[in-house]
Amino acid sequence: MTKAVLLLECSDRKGLVAAIMNFLVSEYDANILHAGQHQDAELARFFMRIEFECASELIHERVFAERFRKIADEYNMRWQLAESDVKLRVCLFVSQHLHCLADLLQRYQAGELECEIALIIGNHPDGEKLAGFYGVPFVHLPIDRDNKAQVEQGQQRLLAEHRVDLVVLARYMQILSPEFVAKWPARIINVHHSFLPAFIGAKPYHAAFNRGVKLIGATSHYVTSDLDEGPIIEQDVVRVTQGDTIPDLVRKGRDLERIVLSRAVRWHLEHRILYYGNKTVIFD
Amino acid sequence: MTKAVLLLECSDRKGLVAAIMNFLVSEYDANILHAGQHQDAELARFFMRIEFECASELIHERVFAERFRKIADEYNMRWQLAESDVKLRVCLFVSQHLHCLADLLQRYQAGELECEIALIIGNHPDGEKLAGFYGVPFVHLPIDRDNKAQVEQGQQRLLAEHRVDLVVLARYMQILSPEFVAKWPARIINVHHSFLPAFIGAKPYHAAFNRGVKLIGATSHYVTSDLDEGPIIEQDVVRVTQGDTIPDLVRKGRDLERIVLSRAVRWHLEHRILYYGNKTVIFD
Amino acid sequence: MTKAVLLLECSDRKGLVAAIMNFLVSEYDANILHAGQHQDAELARFFMRIEFECASELIHERVFAERFRKIADEYNMRWQLAESDVKLRVCLFVSQHLHCLADLLQRYQAGELECEIALIIGNHPDGEKLAGFYGVPFVHLPIDRDNKAQVEQGQQRLLAEHRVDLVVLARYMQILSPEFVAKWPARIINVHHSFLPAFIGAKPYHAAFNRGVKLIGATSHYVTSDLDEGPIIEQDVVRVTQGDTIPDLVRKGRDLERIVLSRAVRWHLEHRILYYGNKTVIFD
Amino acid sequence: MTKAVLLLECSDRKGLVAAIMNFLVSEYDANILHAGQHQDAELARFFMRIEFECASELIHERVFAERFRKIADEYNMRWQLAESDVKLRVCLFVSQHLHCLADLLQRYQAGELECEIALIIGNHPDGEKLAGFYGVPFVHLPIDRDNKAQVEQGQQRLLAEHRVDLVVLARYMQILSPEFVAKWPARIINVHHSFLPAFIGAKPYHAAFNRGVKLIGATSHYVTSDLDEGPIIEQDVVRVTQGDTIPDLVRKGRDLERIVLSRAVRWHLEHRILYYGNKTVIFD
Repeated sequence: MTKAVLLLECSDRKGLVAAIMNFLVSEYDANILHAGQHQDAELARFFMRIEFECASELIHERVFAERFRKIADEYNMRWQLAESDVKLRVCLFVSQHLHCLADLLQRYQAGELECEIALIIGNHPDGEKLAGFYGVPFVHLPIDRDNKAQVEQGQQRLLAEHRVDLVVLARYMQILSPEFVAKWPARIINVHHSFLPAFIGAKPYHAAFNRGVKLIGATSHYVTSDLDEGPIIEQDVVRVTQGDTIPDLVRKGRDLERIVLSRAVRWHLEHRILYYGNKTVIFD
Repeated sequence: MTKAVLLLECSDRKGLVAAIMNFLVSEYDANILHAGQHQDAELARFFMRIEFECASELIHERVFAERFRKIADEYNMRWQLAESDVKLRVCLFVSQHLHCLADLLQRYQAGELECEIALIIGNHPDGEKLAGFYGVPFVHLPIDRDNKAQVEQGQQRLLAEHRVDLVVLARYMQILSPEFVAKWPARIINVHHSFLPAFIGAKPYHAAFNRGVKLIGATSHYVTSDLDEGPIIEQDVVRVTQGDTIPDLVRKGRDLERIVLSRAVRWHLEHRILYYGNKTVIFD
Repeated sequence: MTKAVLLLECSDRKGLVAAIMNFLVSEYDANILHAGQHQDAELARFFMRIEFECASELIHERVFAERFRKIADEYNMRWQLAESDVKLRVCLFVSQHLHCLADLLQRYQAGELECEIALIIGNHPDGEKLAGFYGVPFVHLPIDRDNKAQVEQGQQRLLAEHRVDLVVLARYMQILSPEFVAKWPARIINVHHSFLPAFIGAKPYHAAFNRGVKLIGATSHYVTSDLDEGPIIEQDVVRVTQGDTIPDLVRKGRDLERIVLSRAVRWHLEHRILYYGNKTVIFD
Repeated sequence: MTKAVLLLECSDRKGLVAAIMNFLVSEYDANILHAGQHQDAELARFFMRIEFECASELIHERVFAERFRKIADEYNMRWQLAESDVKLRVCLFVSQHLHCLADLLQRYQAGELECEIALIIGNHPDGEKLAGFYGVPFVHLPIDRDNKAQVEQGQQRLLAEHRVDLVVLARYMQILSPEFVAKWPARIINVHHSFLPAFIGAKPYHAAFNRGVKLIGATSHYVTSDLDEGPIIEQDVVRVTQGDTIPDLVRKGRDLERIVLSRAVRWHLEHRILYYGNKTVIFD
């Protein structure tokens, strides 16, 4: 027996859930472990996540695709199947702030993140020792004014070589080109150190300080070609007071960044996120 | 077409969801509006809430019971069906602190609570004017050392006369007898002014102050014969500091009490709560 | 003996606190009940709030001003003295959404807000009954396309007649003219139904829904001539999910609006807020 | 010029603040950087924290004690002076769960914790590599049924040798003897994985799961001879649902443990905590 997760999206129609459930029971003799669904009434779209258990040989994507085709075609579904035992391969991009990197690596070692961290790429060498301690390869690709396109080619080559499924920008302080982003739809997760859409862009803690807000936030999101405009995955906030200086905001914010980024990564790895338009559906 | 909510609980078995969905589609030609499920792995129990739409004449409980019997028997289900358009009838019990009463009545008037508040019973007369303003009958049943059993009989009579479905203790400062409680299983909601199970019993804000906690809480729960031990529906907390006196805790706590009680009432009215053992399942 | 609150602001200089404390002890034989201070290091500004007790005859503003002048001049202070027993007079402005009005009136009756609610002005008649229930005069001044300036004159006249100290916009859906606002510096409190500076302007819950945020917020602030740009007094947030529709956001947001507005009003009434540049200092 | 923090406690009396401020200004020519105070009205006790700057030679504890004696005696004060530049020396006690250790070491390296982590003592060897990575000595002192007293002697010796000021139990799964605790009053900080006083003792996440709470918490506190009864320093909570298993609670709880423990340690290191009776005063 093997566990798998089916994620799907289609127009909302009568009989849909019954059809899917019947398929899983009659064709797959599946044991449903958990099922969650969401309807967007305005767009009349239906979203579902089903965690199930079935005979191992039936779980291969090609086998499933063939058998599921009839229903998928009938309802015009967008779907994906993931075997729970197959760990996604992750690459972390970092710069000089290492708190998110240290946090993700510690969670990884503690077994919180079901993945293989295949590689860490830094535009600064600062993360190298930490990578080494946790036994993850580190590649230093320094970026200057002139070599950005070339570095991105190197990054793409490394991602391909290491068969990476997900890129996590763990406080990576560079903006990826639209060309790079286009190759990784819903497969790059970033953390922005503000409560988006407030304080888009550079130095959000300075902006928050200057505006005199009483809470600061952090946001994890999929990266799209519009900076800080991608679909939000998770957000959290913490209270600040007049006594907090900008360094205090930075320090308090680091706790938020760690939490919202690690949640987003975990949910992605557990196939809990569906992405449509500029929004995410997060399944429990 | 009419909307209805089916809540059910049974042992977890393969094919369960498909069987239920097939029933609703083939026998009822139902349109599933929302479905949520929960499995308790340890107890191997399955819980489900389905919001659906079907022809009005099929929704009556007797009709449904007859048709659903085969599945219900096969899986040994505990189930209940509620027509969304049929509003539950609610009775509020109050004493002298009126903040929860005022809050519930204002939400009721604003259309947040889909129910009929049929009656307010107070052991003090303080709530009468507010009841009058919102057009709800108020009955004053004063309690002294000797008349408690008699007053409870009067309360039961009034609940029967007004065909009440749900009793809400909106800071009612009396303890109901086990006999009273036994007649209203999972149909009495109370708010306790602490983060249960901390500070069970009288004067929880004083106890919290003396223990020097940094957060205070409030808890809404179904009432069982064990005081403050019933299944928890909702909890929330707020930060306190050394500067907060007991009156400050009382004031801050009132905001929590309003929120956790009103959420519990709303969820009950929308048939979002299943109750098993000493726990609740809350469906989104 | 009478209690009073001294709020002051000046350049930060050595000896400042000692000078103020010496004055209060030697000239006023005062008993310091609570003192809080804040320094803005960047601007080198100092802010202080002192709650003290002294002989009643010394507390009159003119007496205090005369005695305090030497220090105030020496340190070039901006200061204000408020006798704790003198309640501020408040006017609430409302439209059709009554949840903030109901909440403030209930808190007022429960003794949470140390003030005199002198008057409620509505551009719609909806709040009149609630005002009547709590015994507060209500004036209906309907606004149309053409009479806004005239209505504002009427409002100003009423505020003068009722000797109003503070105007609270309790979900008042009109924009006050810069001329009106200029007459009430740091004396108009508004609640905006978003986590400012996100979603400035109209229909913030719709904007939040469309952006797919995972938390929604509300903000209370002093009104300045820049819409939604005034100094923030308090903010709070609540979690939302994909399952929440716009009406759900509106409902969840109402709880936030009540809380952040009522806190702001209470802090103002207790002279806990100092306002400088576009920020507030909130003293515990 | 040197920075220092004066923490003091005494009976609340008129003229107290002025006397202290005058002393600092006239005797020390001090520049007050920040001052916070708290009064416990019930006990008539006064608490104060003053951060100030003065000539370096005046800051030595013996010099200060001599000069301050007159005031200290007059008001019968309990006080302590700490030079900001002198870092406290910290020893971390750990067992097998390393998330708090990893978190504290990362914060230490990032400059968030102004201290010298002199030593890590583990009753299991698991923390050794992490200690080595951050360059902190690690001593493995295994504990069995019979050697506890002996191990505690070894620990005490190590603490003395390394001139340790503060012991932090970073998920140390052993109970210290009353004799050990008595030697370190208000100098041992522990993290308990529940919202105290709920779920005192072993396996609090299991207890929380079984009680069906809707929020779980964590608490950092000074250790006294009463298990889990010491003065609370910080608490925080996170929402859980029926979908969360015990391992989910453990995982969610780890984030809380990291946060409440690291805040407590930082506040202690910055001399922001005063401890009286069974409560703490936390100065901003």
